[in-house]
Amino acid sequence: MIVQETRLDTARIRAARQVIDPIFLDTPLYRCEALEPVLGCAVSVKLETANPIRSFKARGTEVVASGLAANGSRAVVCASAGNLGQALAWSGRGRGLEVTVVASRHATVAKLERIRALGAELELVDGDHELARERAAAIARDQGIRLVEDSLDLETCEGAATIGLELVDALPSFDAVLIALGGGAMATGVGHVVKSHASDVEVICVQPAGAPAMTRSWREHRVVSTDSADTIADGVAGRHPIPEVLDDLLLVADDAVLVQEASIVTGMRMLLDHAGLIVEPSAALGIAAILEDRERFADRHVLTIICGSNVDMDAYHRWIGPAPQ
Amino acid sequence: MIVQETRLDTARIRAARQVIDPIFLDTPLYRCEALEPVLGCAVSVKLETANPIRSFKARGTEVVASGLAANGSRAVVCASAGNLGQALAWSGRGRGLEVTVVASRHATVAKLERIRALGAELELVDGDHELARERAAAIARDQGIRLVEDSLDLETCEGAATIGLELVDALPSFDAVLIALGGGAMATGVGHVVKSHASDVEVICVQPAGAPAMTRSWREHRVVSTDSADTIADGVAGRHPIPEVLDDLLLVADDAVLVQEASIVTGMRMLLDHAGLIVEPSAALGIAAILEDRERFADRHVLTIICGSNVDMDAYHRWIGPAPQ
Repeated sequence: MIVQETRLDTARIRAARQVIDPIFLDTPLYRCEALEPVLGCAVSVKLETANPIRSFKARGTEVVASGLAANGSRAVVCASAGNLGQALAWSGRGRGLEVTVVASRHATVAKLERIRALGAELELVDGDHELARERAAAIARDQGIRLVEDSLDLETCEGAATIGLELVDALPSFDAVLIALGGGAMATGVGHVVKSHASDVEVICVQPAGAPAMTRSWREHRVVSTDSADTIADGVAGRHPIPEVLDDLLLVADDAVLVQEASIVTGMRMLLDHAGLIVEPSAALGIAAILEDRERFADRHVLTIICGSNVDMDAYHRWIGPAPQ
Repeated sequence: MIVQETRLDTARIRAARQVIDPIFLDTPLYRCEALEPVLGCAVSVKLETANPIRSFKARGTEVVASGLAANGSRAVVCASAGNLGQALAWSGRGRGLEVTVVASRHATVAKLERIRALGAELELVDGDHELARERAAAIARDQGIRLVEDSLDLETCEGAATIGLELVDALPSFDAVLIALGGGAMATGVGHVVKSHASDVEVICVQPAGAPAMTRSWREHRVVSTDSADTIADGVAGRHPIPEVLDDLLLVADDAVLVQEASIVTGMRMLLDHAGLIVEPSAALGIAAILEDRERFADRHVLTIICGSNVDMDAYHRWIGPAPQ
């Protein structure tokens, strides 16, 4: 079966589950019926925000950090738009690791503050996430410490893939899963498990039209970089897809769609008004995809992963508007 | 041991757990470190909002409805400020029960809409929750069907008490648990389990100063009713405490405190700004109690149950204000 050719392996994903702090596992998964009349389909959410770092990223950093601790490592560095950095800071702190996070000076302030509060060294670069990746790589080389590369490093994909294990165990099952697409760890990880265990479930990746590099790459079957990324969905605003991750994505994704910024904002507002959930823009991509193609999802049961809730509240209020819907 | 004298029994609570849909069990429990600098103590939350009805109440109605279904009952009625009604509607629908909910015309609109959407018959009364209780009792008598009385009926306490089981299993343990106090099901249920399994943990009930009937009753060791209830915390705005519930509360509560409306609003805003959580006023009572007595909780580890998130978003925005903190 074609899924077997990805870099991922279900046995390793099950092993990853064993080293992840249970506080990040078995997250809520439930129908949001109040959303359904406005979306025209059955909607379930997998909620990855009700944990100490408010995103799914610790599933991956727990795997990374437990491996490093077992090897006697003392330090680790990553580039991050903010969520990976928080997660690595949390996972590293609990295992006595010195954590350095490199981020763009323009990253979400709430995320940067939490990275510092969790005791990590935070280095800011004057540029976007791609420059932060370069700087983190340089630090790793200079200091001879482990560089964690989101989506490239298998642990990050395997950690995210544990969400998939929880999805395929769920009843009643759903027809399609909508996954925010950035670097690709969540899409390839969850996609691998879903296609391996429930191949009839459609795996649909969703990316902002303003940061379309990985989606374009998936469509053209080759790495397509972009010169810029312009989206409020900071967590998925990469420009340079990683070839190995694209190869995996080509094997597990049934589709990759691009959505407008306005749909992301409407999705955020709907999750607030009808589900009582504060989410960051990346977590509203799935709802945005339904909004932009209601016919495709009509009367189907769609699951979307609410992947994070780290948002600057002033920006959130600005996006959503002062008045309720 | 004195705890053994309550109406509750741990074996029955464990049995209750077996009939509750797992979607309502094993809810998130985690530290909210971002709240801690502003509150001056370690804070963990038990999150009861990430489920199909956005409150803890289904733990109790699952026990009620499964018993009714086993007995071949066809219908059930309750009075509700909104959350019990939603919960009973959800639990009854899944078991083919006709559910009638009586509520005040002034109840939270979002709650009333959800009760209807879940297929229950909704009857509104021109008065407060106490009048709704009378009307529900009359319907039960007239139709010869089961009346569910929140806090009086043991299933509602036993359902809520399953939260307690999940708390006492948690590590690291906490020093105090702050529980919203209304009719008393959650306080007596959780309190019973906590005092039975971890008697050194302080059980503190929190009620709005504007709806103090049960707290005054606890303090005076006798039922004290009030003429009115004036609070935004609609879920706990009762006026006539139930004697049996008071008796239980006297055995399990170490303290019962009253908080101001302004503290409830500040608590809601803090949960939004620092934890990314939308909550209804009753769910912010614990944070309000910390705010009003920081010295008492300084450097202790406090757990509070986030018991519901059903709120009218326009009222929420009005309370919290348009601008972020």
